[in-house]
Amino acid sequence: MSQLVSEIGEEGLLRRVRERLGSGAPGEVWAGDDAAVIRVPRDRMLFATDFMVEDVDFSLAYAAGADVGFKAVAINVSDMAAMGGFPLHAVASVSLRPDVEVAFFDSLLDGLVDAAKEWRVSIVGGDISSATEVMVSVAMTGACDEEPILRSGASPGEAICVTGTLGASAAGLFALQHELRGSHHGIDGLIRRHLRPRARVLEGLRLAKVGATAMIDVSDGLALDLKRLMTASGTGCIVEPATIPVDPAIGEMATLVGESPEPLDLAVRGGEDYELLFTIGRERYPDAKLMVGELGTQVTAIGEVTDGPMRIGDMDLKGKDLGWDHLRNR
Amino acid sequence: MSQLVSEIGEEGLLRRVRERLGSGAPGEVWAGDDAAVIRVPRDRMLFATDFMVEDVDFSLAYAAGADVGFKAVAINVSDMAAMGGFPLHAVASVSLRPDVEVAFFDSLLDGLVDAAKEWRVSIVGGDISSATEVMVSVAMTGACDEEPILRSGASPGEAICVTGTLGASAAGLFALQHELRGSHHGIDGLIRRHLRPRARVLEGLRLAKVGATAMIDVSDGLALDLKRLMTASGTGCIVEPATIPVDPAIGEMATLVGESPEPLDLAVRGGEDYELLFTIGRERYPDAKLMVGELGTQVTAIGEVTDGPMRIGDMDLKGKDLGWDHLRNR
Repeated sequence: MSQLVSEIGEEGLLRRVRERLGSGAPGEVWAGDDAAVIRVPRDRMLFATDFMVEDVDFSLAYAAGADVGFKAVAINVSDMAAMGGFPLHAVASVSLRPDVEVAFFDSLLDGLVDAAKEWRVSIVGGDISSATEVMVSVAMTGACDEEPILRSGASPGEAICVTGTLGASAAGLFALQHELRGSHHGIDGLIRRHLRPRARVLEGLRLAKVGATAMIDVSDGLALDLKRLMTASGTGCIVEPATIPVDPAIGEMATLVGESPEPLDLAVRGGEDYELLFTIGRERYPDAKLMVGELGTQVTAIGEVTDGPMRIGDMDLKGKDLGWDHLRNR
Repeated sequence: MSQLVSEIGEEGLLRRVRERLGSGAPGEVWAGDDAAVIRVPRDRMLFATDFMVEDVDFSLAYAAGADVGFKAVAINVSDMAAMGGFPLHAVASVSLRPDVEVAFFDSLLDGLVDAAKEWRVSIVGGDISSATEVMVSVAMTGACDEEPILRSGASPGEAICVTGTLGASAAGLFALQHELRGSHHGIDGLIRRHLRPRARVLEGLRLAKVGATAMIDVSDGLALDLKRLMTASGTGCIVEPATIPVDPAIGEMATLVGESPEPLDLAVRGGEDYELLFTIGRERYPDAKLMVGELGTQVTAIGEVTDGPMRIGDMDLKGKDLGWDHLRNR
């Protein structure tokens, strides 16, 4: 018989958390006290937070608890990667509807722990409450081997590059919402890109070493995140649409459905790809392509930093409706 | 004319946040990049998170945005205090209903910033999303001058003590819910204890110096938090109800209302007082009382750590319904 979280209560859930997380590395204290006590290896640290809300960022109609937990960690790890850093410790806050099954909570915890293992981040504490929707908020610390790569370091003349392919996550969401499934035409791969995003930590570390000048992860869409990068740098840009690495599986999916969205549009506005968008001096670009390529991840130059306006082809990034805005687009 | 958050969107709100928070201390990068870059003064750090959900932890029927923001920081600072530590940096996640006014968000931001100033913690980043209820989640780092005081350090024979008075916050909530107001009979003071809790940072630092052996902040009620302290220490306890420092204003409020709750019950089960509950060797108790007394905060010995059962008078702490459980009690 299935048990509801309201039957075992906050205390019961916290006990499950403590059992899953363990009591900590030597000299550390993890879940179970007022605060965790953790070791800090450097005198500078990265610190970020990102959260996911049911029916805004995911739907339980298609996402399992483990997907939600995994992604909540992954999107924070991606923030560390976008600084050229790596994750160290995390705390997680979870709100649950009282009518949610304990099995869902266990699955969510599985996802958190799986992602933590994947990127070697220690989840050292958290908080649980009830709400009318499921919410997972993760805060994460990290560190850099080199200087952190800020959004503000781009200069005119540099190349604008992106790792991997774009649009896959938004296409995966489209597939989930339209109940398209199946390994043929790569649909399962697209769905996986949406539910279980990969944070590009190793890629970010190499890009820091090779001299990337500014970097951001593509979380809200190429257009919006490119605008953020250029705005922070006080520069303009020109991106050639034909060079944008649209994920090839999107076109294949489009052949299956009548009204599927335009692949390039998904790549430009889709968001949640968690690829790294960065700028780098022209002379360093071949090294970046080579070093990241060794990890099995492609790097594509899609345009150039300018001192003019911000453009992707004919699209002026000063305009509205560039991508995902959590409060505007409902 | 009032403006809604959905009209200015996430980007517009983030701009307001960046303007309020500033660009950071020298050598640091605060809000505006993928992660904040912060300096870490020690090789060990405290790390905790706590969040508040509308209609579970507060109601906008009686709490202003500034109250919610202030308390979200205060409860995390209290976690640092309960370790005998002090806060350093924080990140805040905020979910808003799209129909919330921008003025509410500004007020919430005021509260976050006021509390941050109060306890000298730097809010260095955050995240905003929409949801069907307002939620504020804060994650905080801190540090200790002495060894952190864990929940697990109590030994039989030691005194169980608490700072300040108990029950005031729950009484303040009662007053808010029953629309009792006014400076007479101390009602406004009780309300303030509920809406603007004081985190006992200076008290915690002195208790660490003077040799407190185990400590927790009273967030979910004396009964539940005492049980947590004793369970972590593997000990029992006997608390004498007559010694519990029930806030005197509660009795005064009770004279005003027919069906007001029993003052001792509020002190035992009420929660959210954010006083420090700690254990200390009998011989150190007078020093603790003196040193914390110098801060204008009373310390009261309410019982003794034992190797027997956990009791407050006749109440067995093994039982249920000890205090606030976020998922059980709706």
